[in-house]
Amino acid sequence: MAFLGRTLGSAVRRYSRGAAKEWLTGDFLDALRAVAGPTNVSTAAAVCEQHGHDESMHRCCPPDAVVWPQTVEQVSLLASACYSHGAPMIPFGTGTGLEGGVSAVQGGVCFNLTQMDQILELNTEDFTVTVEPGVTRKALNHFLRGSGLWFPVDPGADASLCGMAATSASGTNAVRYGTMRQNVLNLQVVLPDGKLLHTGGQNRRPRKSAAGYNLTGLFIGSEGTLGFITQATVRLHGIPEATVAAVCGFPSVQAAVDSTVQILQASIPIARIEFLDEVMMRACNRYSGLSYTEQPTLFLEFHGSQRGVGEQVEATGEIVKSNDGSEFAWAQEQEDRARLWTARHNAWYAALALRPGRKGYSTDVCVPISRLPEVLLETKKDLLESQLTGPIVGHVGDGNFHCLLLHDPEDVDEKGRVEEFAKRLGRRALAVGGTCTGEHGIGLGKRQLLREEVGEVALSTMQQIKAALDPKNLMNPGKVL
Amino acid sequence: MAFLGRTLGSAVRRYSRGAAKEWLTGDFLDALRAVAGPTNVSTAAAVCEQHGHDESMHRCCPPDAVVWPQTVEQVSLLASACYSHGAPMIPFGTGTGLEGGVSAVQGGVCFNLTQMDQILELNTEDFTVTVEPGVTRKALNHFLRGSGLWFPVDPGADASLCGMAATSASGTNAVRYGTMRQNVLNLQVVLPDGKLLHTGGQNRRPRKSAAGYNLTGLFIGSEGTLGFITQATVRLHGIPEATVAAVCGFPSVQAAVDSTVQILQASIPIARIEFLDEVMMRACNRYSGLSYTEQPTLFLEFHGSQRGVGEQVEATGEIVKSNDGSEFAWAQEQEDRARLWTARHNAWYAALALRPGRKGYSTDVCVPISRLPEVLLETKKDLLESQLTGPIVGHVGDGNFHCLLLHDPEDVDEKGRVEEFAKRLGRRALAVGGTCTGEHGIGLGKRQLLREEVGEVALSTMQQIKAALDPKNLMNPGKVL
Repeated sequence: MAFLGRTLGSAVRRYSRGAAKEWLTGDFLDALRAVAGPTNVSTAAAVCEQHGHDESMHRCCPPDAVVWPQTVEQVSLLASACYSHGAPMIPFGTGTGLEGGVSAVQGGVCFNLTQMDQILELNTEDFTVTVEPGVTRKALNHFLRGSGLWFPVDPGADASLCGMAATSASGTNAVRYGTMRQNVLNLQVVLPDGKLLHTGGQNRRPRKSAAGYNLTGLFIGSEGTLGFITQATVRLHGIPEATVAAVCGFPSVQAAVDSTVQILQASIPIARIEFLDEVMMRACNRYSGLSYTEQPTLFLEFHGSQRGVGEQVEATGEIVKSNDGSEFAWAQEQEDRARLWTARHNAWYAALALRPGRKGYSTDVCVPISRLPEVLLETKKDLLESQLTGPIVGHVGDGNFHCLLLHDPEDVDEKGRVEEFAKRLGRRALAVGGTCTGEHGIGLGKRQLLREEVGEVALSTMQQIKAALDPKNLMNPGKVL
Repeated sequence: MAFLGRTLGSAVRRYSRGAAKEWLTGDFLDALRAVAGPTNVSTAAAVCEQHGHDESMHRCCPPDAVVWPQTVEQVSLLASACYSHGAPMIPFGTGTGLEGGVSAVQGGVCFNLTQMDQILELNTEDFTVTVEPGVTRKALNHFLRGSGLWFPVDPGADASLCGMAATSASGTNAVRYGTMRQNVLNLQVVLPDGKLLHTGGQNRRPRKSAAGYNLTGLFIGSEGTLGFITQATVRLHGIPEATVAAVCGFPSVQAAVDSTVQILQASIPIARIEFLDEVMMRACNRYSGLSYTEQPTLFLEFHGSQRGVGEQVEATGEIVKSNDGSEFAWAQEQEDRARLWTARHNAWYAALALRPGRKGYSTDVCVPISRLPEVLLETKKDLLESQLTGPIVGHVGDGNFHCLLLHDPEDVDEKGRVEEFAKRLGRRALAVGGTCTGEHGIGLGKRQLLREEVGEVALSTMQQIKAALDPKNLMNPGKVL
């Protein structure tokens, strides 16, 4: 996308002009090898390329070296080495980000943390678990099988939990269980100079605390710009006695979104409420071999006791009916539910498959629920007028939705239209009291929108915090601010 | 309490030695009067005394002047005047804090914000409201009558919502609805130099956001040390269709706490679960004219649909029975519930009335639920051995409880025992992975415990943030850090 590409391009030019990478010496690389072991440091071009991009279409900026630390002590020693040499550091988890967060715009050393993948401490009585940065949400939930517990935050991708904390991820279950902000109790962080920080104190996991500044909250969503998250203690939840999923079509976008608003206003404790427009439904049908009616649709899930779920379904059914929704297509068995949610999770790939060879870019606005119908309708109209393919999918229970914009990277005109559309959509969200990013973060592409969203004083406050905690600007430089 | 008194005393001595209060001139006071109006600035001794203490037993440290700003513009201009003159600034809401947060240990200007008491914007569709700092939780809930909405965070005292944000308050409903951390969407803050900060951007209220550093979260719990909270946008909740409260006695502390742990582990969405030991029950019976059996007791409340509440009550009843709990004493009518919770809310005064003329000090530890029984039992034993009266009351669903320690301020020996007991209790909580404060904050008395709790690196990170945002250390100096 030209908008993002240009921003990034100018950042690269600005830095590359002055920065001679004096730190990049054989001695420095030997120092990294001495800490991590010789096979855990690579400067191979192919390896660096792999680590220079995430799943977004932001331009690849490879780091100069990649290290695979095995322990937090190694992360600390490696950071200390980078810090004293002035080498930029970029944390890397699963590389499933969507805003270019791992792009090494100034080069530097990428810390691939996936080999630190131990689940350190499970407390089934307190519903907490502590994990290393290589543990993904699926690995954790696999580990929890049989315990009666699960971790609900689900951004779709099988991201690492520490990466999800760094991005303030959320996803389909957030309407009921909250985002990472509500589900992280404590973090272990390696600061840029190698010091080890426990944001809530070492080995602490009270359900609440009023002890000093909320450092845990500060690191959630800091996108790797303040330090390496090397451990996360998260809250678990009891697996509900009953789970029922359903699909329901609507005659219009307005009817689907009105139903969402009314379900929330009725305080029905719905676990998932996902909107897919008719274009996305067509894509999902094709990609996942389904045969849903191709109209604005809600995917719903209810959690609770048998009786409680029945009651939720009944109340939701009445609301849906009053908005001319179809009968529910039920998915009560685990297997049917898995098929339904796999189709939803594959929406990104399904959208890409609509126009093979095209690149995708996902927008991420989040607006107050009451403003969602108008914003969605205006966005649909804008897509038409801009002659863009952009199937819509959204966590509408939170007011958060994504246009998956497809474009031909060679088509300059189309790229320009995508760029303009994304800017307009971001500003449309800001105009109604929303945010340019509900869950993907700022990364590289939304720094201008962040400025417009929070204003100069908030931005300069963030910059002061960044300067205080990372005075040499070595942690994932060029991101967020 | 000697422990706290000494800490404070030495702080006062340290500062008063060097600080000549050169800022305290007639011209400076005239500048304040020019902004706030002559009748809204006072240097009268009685007024300053009133503003030098909260509800705790921390020694009164009066400010040198009190101002009553009427608008955020005035707060900004007044802060700017204080900043340029080097005058300490102390935000003051309802003065209901419990850790000496408003104590003017270096003197300075107290900003009494209670006259800014407008409810600015209610969004019933989005369940949000924006309030000025003088709006208390009871005033907000009174205003919301008939809307079907309410604000559940309830620390007992009728505190201001912005003060509750500053303290990271919680209380009896937190087990279901979360603390202030989960219920504040955005804050307007006047920074020490008078600049106006919107932590989440001006007029923004999305349900979630991943846009930049979480400044909202940083200011929640900052105890007035980073700026003045001059507006809060908070989440509201739908009033449940049905509410039922109950009281249940147990043969032992262990049985009551085991029931709590089991209720939580069964994922029963209980709204309130409060523990009172037999000493506190005696105090409440006497003070509120009740006749409950004087044994370890749980006060419970269930929210939901009629059917849902029935189901919760049934499941809870089975757990209670298996732990030899008594039959529930029901309070289904609004009036009965009000009597029950008034008795609970008056626990502090009921405890004080146990030994008239004594002072009270409330401890505030919060531990992982699984460790709660042992910590409570050890604490009861310690009270006996220390020959102290300390009725216990707690938000046990969060693992948070208070010993309301009664002591004769003239009895040096008793004060010493209170001091030692409070330290031991704090360290007992830290030893099992808990915190020294679940909801009262650090204020003056727990700075040493904060250091032990979070460690040197976290403390120095907090100090760096403080220095970045308040470089002259003028915002509520001497607190937290």
